[in-house]
Amino acid sequence: MPDFREPHQLTATEAIRLIQDGKLTSREWVASCLDRISSRDPEIRAWATVNGNAIEDSDAQTARGIAATIPVGAKDIIDICGMPTGMGTDFHSPDPVTREGGSISLMREAGCVFMGKAVTTELGHMHPGPTRNPHNTDHTPGGSSSGSAAAVADFMVPVCLGTQTTGSVIRPAAYCGVIGYKPTYNDFDKTHILANAPSMDTLGLMARSVDDIALMRGILVEEPDKPVANIRISDLKFGLLTSSPWDEADDESRGFIEGLAGKLGALGAKITEVRLDREVPRLMELQRTISGYEFKRSIAFERLRHFDSLSKILREGRLADGVRVSASEYQAAIREVASLRLRLADLFNDVDILLFPSADGPAPAGIEATGKPTFNSAWTVAGNPVITLPLFRSSTGGMPIGCQFIAGFANDDMLISAMRKVMESVAPDTVPGA
Amino acid sequence: MPDFREPHQLTATEAIRLIQDGKLTSREWVASCLDRISSRDPEIRAWATVNGNAIEDSDAQTARGIAATIPVGAKDIIDICGMPTGMGTDFHSPDPVTREGGSISLMREAGCVFMGKAVTTELGHMHPGPTRNPHNTDHTPGGSSSGSAAAVADFMVPVCLGTQTTGSVIRPAAYCGVIGYKPTYNDFDKTHILANAPSMDTLGLMARSVDDIALMRGILVEEPDKPVANIRISDLKFGLLTSSPWDEADDESRGFIEGLAGKLGALGAKITEVRLDREVPRLMELQRTISGYEFKRSIAFERLRHFDSLSKILREGRLADGVRVSASEYQAAIREVASLRLRLADLFNDVDILLFPSADGPAPAGIEATGKPTFNSAWTVAGNPVITLPLFRSSTGGMPIGCQFIAGFANDDMLISAMRKVMESVAPDTVPGA
Repeated sequence: MPDFREPHQLTATEAIRLIQDGKLTSREWVASCLDRISSRDPEIRAWATVNGNAIEDSDAQTARGIAATIPVGAKDIIDICGMPTGMGTDFHSPDPVTREGGSISLMREAGCVFMGKAVTTELGHMHPGPTRNPHNTDHTPGGSSSGSAAAVADFMVPVCLGTQTTGSVIRPAAYCGVIGYKPTYNDFDKTHILANAPSMDTLGLMARSVDDIALMRGILVEEPDKPVANIRISDLKFGLLTSSPWDEADDESRGFIEGLAGKLGALGAKITEVRLDREVPRLMELQRTISGYEFKRSIAFERLRHFDSLSKILREGRLADGVRVSASEYQAAIREVASLRLRLADLFNDVDILLFPSADGPAPAGIEATGKPTFNSAWTVAGNPVITLPLFRSSTGGMPIGCQFIAGFANDDMLISAMRKVMESVAPDTVPGA
Repeated sequence: MPDFREPHQLTATEAIRLIQDGKLTSREWVASCLDRISSRDPEIRAWATVNGNAIEDSDAQTARGIAATIPVGAKDIIDICGMPTGMGTDFHSPDPVTREGGSISLMREAGCVFMGKAVTTELGHMHPGPTRNPHNTDHTPGGSSSGSAAAVADFMVPVCLGTQTTGSVIRPAAYCGVIGYKPTYNDFDKTHILANAPSMDTLGLMARSVDDIALMRGILVEEPDKPVANIRISDLKFGLLTSSPWDEADDESRGFIEGLAGKLGALGAKITEVRLDREVPRLMELQRTISGYEFKRSIAFERLRHFDSLSKILREGRLADGVRVSASEYQAAIREVASLRLRLADLFNDVDILLFPSADGPAPAGIEATGKPTFNSAWTVAGNPVITLPLFRSSTGGMPIGCQFIAGFANDDMLISAMRKVMESVAPDTVPGA
């Protein structure tokens, strides 16, 4: 457990408390994060753009009455006034944008200071950026929110925005040993964010504490003072989801999750085994159909004007997938997802939270590929809220391994409350981050 | 019926045929539309920006092998490279944008020439722009796609893009006497278009012929060569929807639609009376809940940074609505809509197309307000495809009155085929436009 002496090592809720107690200033906190970025980013490469005016921005927020400004980052497919949006390409305009979307506006209003734009894979897809995993720089941080996960894991910012269309929040968070949160579909506004597949694109969060997730959710849904309920583990019904693709996770990851189920059961939680043999594989297929179709047209600008500048994996992968789907097949897939969502709602009448691997194992070696989203894509198209907690370490190499917790549609508040209690009860000595 | 001697008076499919036959050039067509805009727009005020390089753009398209370029317009909440996006406000950047979304990219690829940006109400809501109804300039053109409807009605462009969140395509099209088409939700890409309420925002079309609607749909779903099926009126089952808000339409509008049902029945169509006493009023309430909530955060940038520059009707209307809705009420409304959509799908197993007024009457006098979306909002949140045809004229003043045709989700191709046949069979002498 690190010794929390430097402000950049604090979680947002910890730092805000110190500021409220007069033991830290907003400016010191922001400056400490900037210093951390300066010293570490040459190695980690988490940032596409760093806001050189972050201290002035913090001072301006303080001057308008914000008690504690919050240093945050955002994936570089999200527009932020005063910075360019590079999207992981080399041909988009280097000029700063002049409008930003709802979520950024709400965060700015609440006192957030945008420290910069975190590296994304190319257009939020698979072709990687230069970012390295802070736990072992020879390993991928995951993608597509690569820089977001690495920056939080490496204590450069307490919180960073990412987005998920397939597995782009949960997987990098798990690989980098931080908490990742994909809220219920459409809970967070996503205007002025590069669209990949709008029917499932979800703005999410990376952080190093569940309290920070709750803090940011409050800001983003404009309900900042809603308290986190005090749920008991023994009040919860967990489902261990052991149907496909369960067997695609490595033995160690499956063993960890089975062990966790045992611990939660010992604490009084009800544990049942759940199988969704038809639903999850079908959702995975539908996710591929819908996201391929929507991606092809969402990035028609790049596809039609800059095709030769796109990576091979993009041209021959998702773009090729999309071209094979007709408009009527696409809408049929949309309707089938609507039916499957209703069927899942029935399941979540009996179970509060499903346990499932966050990925098929720890972050693979190499930074040429960002790992597989096998365990994530069904839950992205289904729209359920998901949190990954960094509860485990691989026996060889000590790389982080996460567990994915999946709740019923729009049951985010319960999920967040439960996650706080899981961290306290099951992993009291776990400190997210590298 | 106008004498079609000037190219700007032609529909797109008519002009393309003349170009293919060597009787017209793309350049002549574009130049004729530009001339029409120059001569008429000082009175109609349909345009926020006119593309002074339209002829050069057409020549460039011809040079890259496009056989017939198509002059089109787009509502000024839609980004188009090389033009600013004003959004009906006076504080957004006057600089040209540098990226555009999927639909604009696809249209450009297919040879469309963007003639300019059509006037929108403020941020696509209710506060009107300066546009006047070409049928009587003392009357509103409707909104929020005011300029789009007026430009097509006044023969300035054959086709214009609009958007609908409540009734913003169908109502202005009906008021201006043109064809309006709101496709199935998400059939057309809407990236780089100002979001109002993303769960229902729909990119739509105004045109003066059903064939032009089919042409543009083919381009926008990237299935340009799909033929329009040859449906017979006698094969169709129409439902006359007489439950609420039916009684809010004026006597004349209701009488016209009852008369139309009689004519279709005489042509062999099956006609039944349909009542959705619970569903439609509830969808109207849910549309207001969801759109208020989503609008409040989609335009958080304007709300938080430019509040004093916004109109009173925006601040005290939809924004105030949105603030009253909690995050959990919002997601409950989203789930209820999903259930209602499934219930409507059952209805459309028995009926092909519903008949319903497009508005409560013809365009009201005055340009200070854009009329009521009473008859449109349920179908926007439900996501069904809708076409308004300009079949009638008011007895006092001769203002256009439309009929709304509503099909089952994703049944757009059938609806378009049927609309072509309705225009031919029921209104062979009707020429849309002013």
